[in-house]
Amino acid sequence: MKAMPSRDTSDVAIPDVAELDLFVIMDALSGPARRSIVLALAERDGVPCGQFGLSIAKSTAARHFRVLLEAGLIRQWDDGNIKRNGLRRDEIEHRFPGLLDLVLREARTTR
Amino acid sequence: MKAMPSRDTSDVAIPDVAELDLFVIMDALSGPARRSIVLALAERDGVPCGQFGLSIAKSTAARHFRVLLEAGLIRQWDDGNIKRNGLRRDEIEHRFPGLLDLVLREARTTR
Repeated sequence: MKAMPSRDTSDVAIPDVAELDLFVIMDALSGPARRSIVLALAERDGVPCGQFGLSIAKSTAARHFRVLLEAGLIRQWDDGNIKRNGLRRDEIEHRFPGLLDLVLREARTTR
Repeated sequence: MKAMPSRDTSDVAIPDVAELDLFVIMDALSGPARRSIVLALAERDGVPCGQFGLSIAKSTAARHFRVLLEAGLIRQWDDGNIKRNGLRRDEIEHRFPGLLDLVLREARTTR
């Protein structure tokens, strides 16, 4: 049985660029809430966790952030008391050229 | 509750090229068995359903073919008593340029 993901993401294994896995990324992008997070970060870097306008429970949102972190799609950093998020755009583009453009274009037309 | 998929794929809704959905395709590609089917079809067109060397139950394989058909990744046709499969390569390339190349390259390195 999989352990319940905690809301604290400090223990998340963050893949470095060589470890990025296309199919883990695709799986992460299969969820509409996660896509909307990625899309928001493509438009604005550094959005705090609580400001994505997601109408879902905090624990659900935390799980989505964890999946995105583990897939290597986003990074998080502390800024005083808030946790900010950014898209790992250059690294993903480097490993999987064209992928993010396809994803962002499609996510925009379907949101 | 979702109906159990039948092994007969004659009732599958096959998307046409304008209906292809990137995220449905990505979701379909998240399964290793389905990727191995796609990879085999990239290398040889017209592989019969029973000849992919999948070490899984027939009913499981049938479910994978159904997911691939519904995502628009493959087509099937009858050839006498056998059902052959093909990758919808040109259509996918037309809608999502570069996607299949990324997928096939990665699937080859991880099989």
